[in-house]
Amino acid sequence: MKFSITILGCNSAIPTLHRNPSAQILNVHESLFLIDCAEGTQIQLLKYKIRLQRINHILISHLHGDHYFGLIGLLSSFHLLGRKNEIHVYAQEALKKILDIQLLASETKLTYPLIFHPINPEVHENIFEDDKLCINTFPVKHSIPTCGFLFKEKQAERNIRKEILSQIKIPYSEFDKIKKGADYISPKGVIYKNADLTLDPPPSRSYAYCTDTCYYEQIIPHIKDVDLLYHEATFMQNKAKSASEKFHSTTKDAATIAKKANVKKLVIGHYSSRYDDLEPLLSEAKNEFPNTYLAEDGKVFEID
Amino acid sequence: MKFSITILGCNSAIPTLHRNPSAQILNVHESLFLIDCAEGTQIQLLKYKIRLQRINHILISHLHGDHYFGLIGLLSSFHLLGRKNEIHVYAQEALKKILDIQLLASETKLTYPLIFHPINPEVHENIFEDDKLCINTFPVKHSIPTCGFLFKEKQAERNIRKEILSQIKIPYSEFDKIKKGADYISPKGVIYKNADLTLDPPPSRSYAYCTDTCYYEQIIPHIKDVDLLYHEATFMQNKAKSASEKFHSTTKDAATIAKKANVKKLVIGHYSSRYDDLEPLLSEAKNEFPNTYLAEDGKVFEID
Repeated sequence: MKFSITILGCNSAIPTLHRNPSAQILNVHESLFLIDCAEGTQIQLLKYKIRLQRINHILISHLHGDHYFGLIGLLSSFHLLGRKNEIHVYAQEALKKILDIQLLASETKLTYPLIFHPINPEVHENIFEDDKLCINTFPVKHSIPTCGFLFKEKQAERNIRKEILSQIKIPYSEFDKIKKGADYISPKGVIYKNADLTLDPPPSRSYAYCTDTCYYEQIIPHIKDVDLLYHEATFMQNKAKSASEKFHSTTKDAATIAKKANVKKLVIGHYSSRYDDLEPLLSEAKNEFPNTYLAEDGKVFEID
Repeated sequence: MKFSITILGCNSAIPTLHRNPSAQILNVHESLFLIDCAEGTQIQLLKYKIRLQRINHILISHLHGDHYFGLIGLLSSFHLLGRKNEIHVYAQEALKKILDIQLLASETKLTYPLIFHPINPEVHENIFEDDKLCINTFPVKHSIPTCGFLFKEKQAERNIRKEILSQIKIPYSEFDKIKKGADYISPKGVIYKNADLTLDPPPSRSYAYCTDTCYYEQIIPHIKDVDLLYHEATFMQNKAKSASEKFHSTTKDAATIAKKANVKKLVIGHYSSRYDDLEPLLSEAKNEFPNTYLAEDGKVFEID
């Protein structure tokens, strides 16, 4: 089952010709979640052949424009394409007013229900849960209120061993209970232990999204041991002062957080437009945390 | 002296990979005016190497998103680049609130003065005038209040004939009066007629921008005899019913207006995303008005 991230934009506020500002698609078992939505995100979706209508959930980390200016355009395009399905937006309350005032100015009555879920970025909260995924927010530290997102796949059910089914006859009606961990008792009273009937499910996977933030150790408990961490690295280490003044991180900050949180893999992004070549940023982060990768527009990171 | 239009976006509301929605740059003697500002306009400016800091005036025809969603991003980039010069925005009053609420959400205090000039799209009014250019609005007919823009170059001064200056000695202090049409009287009382001293200046040039609008003959007096008319042609003639229902124009509508207004050249644009190949639209318009051209992203139309 799919669990992947597609980078739609990896730059900080000012776009460049090859790097759009923040937006990503998380694909969880073919359900698509859009994380942040900078200006131009709908063009990036077109470019990377991601069908707009497959997106049902949009999460916005904070209200700097490079994280949401593309949202109203995307919502308008959904409307013009005649969308009927609900769209769920998770963001700070103020964004609702920003969307409403623009829909009012164009006299637009959306063709689909827009369900707005207000986020309080100051606290750690659960904002989404279904049978496959759970999403929690956690506060990060930036110049305005901002949160990170932790996406955690639900533990899958146990797998019934195929060879068992050819040895003993188990009614189909018992499958669900066995997958959930129950033993099986045959009509003759024979007890088959669950451990003999099933195999462990694959471990559940997790992804943490942390941008924009300065170096902030309080996020570590929230992102501990995740499979993949996206952490901003706006600047190289020689710009540590600028980073700190602007509540952003350096390459080393991101890598140190990854190391201390014991994550499996780190992806850095949200680069300042000053950097044409990103290899020096990668190299700096790798010095601290070797399993680091560069976010680049169009790149896909699969979590196996 | 330059008088040209650069097309930054020629599509209607839903962008395609090769056609951005509405935005254009008018260059009048190296002063740049941005006309409409769809999402992605700042990327188009980058792509076509037009320096952001050279733009001082932005005009917005109406408040459908495909004509202004890129404005807040552009204004934010001006800010992040540390702009100091005033920027003048000409648009309907509601846009001011839309900008303000977004600047407030990001706690942004712009580094430059943003001067907002409210437009009343229901009337014909003069919204700008300097020594080179005059801009008037006029109402067009769309599903929400919308105006067109007429850009008229000021009549240049008369040119003093070079060969005259080698024949008679005219003090430099008299040049301005002569350029404005005065005769010259020498210290000995000889009268030199202005018609003998000067040549006619080049005729003043004009450009009219009409989008979005259905076929609307009331615009003709405002755009009569212009050198260049941009008129939307969202649909081909076989979609005349759709065009009319959505208050848009067909190719034939645009060409008929061009013909009746006796304009010199017509550029069509604001194409529906349904059209991959634009040649059939051009061909249809040319049947009615032969001197028609297609707007395409990046194309420049010089008015000589």
